[in-house]
Amino acid sequence: MKNMDNRILTKLKQRLSPKRLTHSLGVSETAVRLAARYGANLDKARLAGLLHDCARDMPNNLLLQTAEANAIVLRDVERRAPMLLHAPVGVIVARQDYGITDPEVLSAIRWHTTGGPDMSLLDYIVFFADYIEPGRSFPGVESLRALADRGLEEAVLAAYDQTLGHLMAERALIHSDTIEGRNALLLKMK
Amino acid sequence: MKNMDNRILTKLKQRLSPKRLTHSLGVSETAVRLAARYGANLDKARLAGLLHDCARDMPNNLLLQTAEANAIVLRDVERRAPMLLHAPVGVIVARQDYGITDPEVLSAIRWHTTGGPDMSLLDYIVFFADYIEPGRSFPGVESLRALADRGLEEAVLAAYDQTLGHLMAERALIHSDTIEGRNALLLKMK
Repeated sequence: MKNMDNRILTKLKQRLSPKRLTHSLGVSETAVRLAARYGANLDKARLAGLLHDCARDMPNNLLLQTAEANAIVLRDVERRAPMLLHAPVGVIVARQDYGITDPEVLSAIRWHTTGGPDMSLLDYIVFFADYIEPGRSFPGVESLRALADRGLEEAVLAAYDQTLGHLMAERALIHSDTIEGRNALLLKMK
Repeated sequence: MKNMDNRILTKLKQRLSPKRLTHSLGVSETAVRLAARYGANLDKARLAGLLHDCARDMPNNLLLQTAEANAIVLRDVERRAPMLLHAPVGVIVARQDYGITDPEVLSAIRWHTTGGPDMSLLDYIVFFADYIEPGRSFPGVESLRALADRGLEEAVLAAYDQTLGHLMAERALIHSDTIEGRNALLLKMK
């Protein structure tokens, strides 16, 4: 696993900005910590954290082109903000360029940005680690970090609401996966 | 039109609580004012305002039964909060019990609660009148009222965000029509 990590890191260094690489290492480390706490596979958490943003520095036209070539559904939200495509396109890139075949790792990459209605424990862990890794500093991040110790579902719900609040403040479109993900989580919690 | 209103009022008095009737009169009056300001049909605004909640005091089991009998789609959100069905069921009731056949009036009843992606000017007017009629007193209602004079689209966007904030505070499910409605409005505004 360690050799694999080194090969991945070498390639990520070529493809991601230094800032993005630091972020990815932070998500990986945080995901491992959450996996240890909540009983997910540590290796998969590390790998998914490391690779979650592997398509994040691709230019918009390449994201759109790769999405279309792979029959990834494009809605108004993705056309307006092609950056959102780095999650589904990240699955393609992780498979083709990094040799990742584990469906659990690929699923965590798939859902890390919008969330979604059918997320696994590992998916939630990577999704939430992306909010609270040590490099994050948005208003409210400290209370999200504190929630990580009080149950993953509460933490993920707060992360969804943080995102919705942010999108409203920005007058930005809201992805239906985010709403379906939040609804499904609430139904699971009650 | 006045005779029609009297027949409708007589029937509404039998079917709605006094509080709900007062609210409906408030929405009707506010919708007429907004229609005058934004160039919609005043008679249709008055009628849609008066009748928007015509199914609002039906018990949940009757709402569910009427929805199923009329092939109205039930999702998790409606199963959890059957009250939401008073809008689509209101269309059935307005047609069957109040003799309303005007598709514009029926459409305003249909979308007044969740909002939706394909709303007309009249739909927006009734939707927004429902938030700001004189009997409303929730936190933030005064700033919504002030927005009514600064453009209907800005006002409706603020109403959507008010609803989303409320649903988040209540840990309640969010209806996909509300998100699609807000997204469609933003796309229209930009």
